[in-house]
Amino acid sequence: MHKVNIKFTKSSYFITDLKLCAVRLINNKKFPWIILIPKRIKVTDITELKTQDQILLIKEIVLASKVMKKIFNTKKLNVEKIGNKVSQLHIHIIARNSKDSSWPLSVWVVKGKTYSKSALIKITREIRKAFK
Amino acid sequence: MHKVNIKFTKSSYFITDLKLCAVRLINNKKFPWIILIPKRIKVTDITELKTQDQILLIKEIVLASKVMKKIFNTKKLNVEKIGNKVSQLHIHIIARNSKDSSWPLSVWVVKGKTYSKSALIKITREIRKAFK
Repeated sequence: MHKVNIKFTKSSYFITDLKLCAVRLINNKKFPWIILIPKRIKVTDITELKTQDQILLIKEIVLASKVMKKIFNTKKLNVEKIGNKVSQLHIHIIARNSKDSSWPLSVWVVKGKTYSKSALIKITREIRKAFK
Repeated sequence: MHKVNIKFTKSSYFITDLKLCAVRLINNKKFPWIILIPKRIKVTDITELKTQDQILLIKEIVLASKVMKKIFNTKKLNVEKIGNKVSQLHIHIIARNSKDSSWPLSVWVVKGKTYSKSALIKITREIRKAFK
């Protein structure tokens, strides 16, 4: 398995591997929230990916977006490449809805809250299944 | 010219037209900040773009990212599709650095500040030139 930054392994849980990206769940029950991490060494920005990987990235963003919209029954997604704190390239895909805890603001304005262990197992399983 | 949402015309300034996207400067001098708006009717999410447009989008994100990194002399970009308030699909590309007013947090945690008219003309001109 491709090595992921220790900050990811601490705050997120493996869901599945796509061709380019590892998919992980962010442990924050306030928002259904996954990250896509391109399995490429020392890449911190989309511009550093090869052209073919850039195209794979948008395809996997679209695939993951469709999964999140379907499972969490929303049309509203936030898709974000931030990387201010963890420089390894990763894309946040967050299912939003008008009743969530920071709507209509960004998810970054509220503190996170972790899942229970059983909820974590349930949600990672559900998302993994939807990627198959 | 493709119609853009009135909320964009109020808060941002035209820079240039790419094949898929209109490029506009967000009027917030706290961050060098542009948006890419795909010139497609009623599209609110990347998944709603046709496959060829999805590929054009990632190519134009890469082009715009390179422009922003070069002009503002940084390796750190935030690339974000949010759209909670304005649903028409648009991608934020923000040049960040460790001395900016919300680093390492998201740009969404601080209030914006508008440019002076002369600064606005200067920066839109400079970015426009870099896209040529």
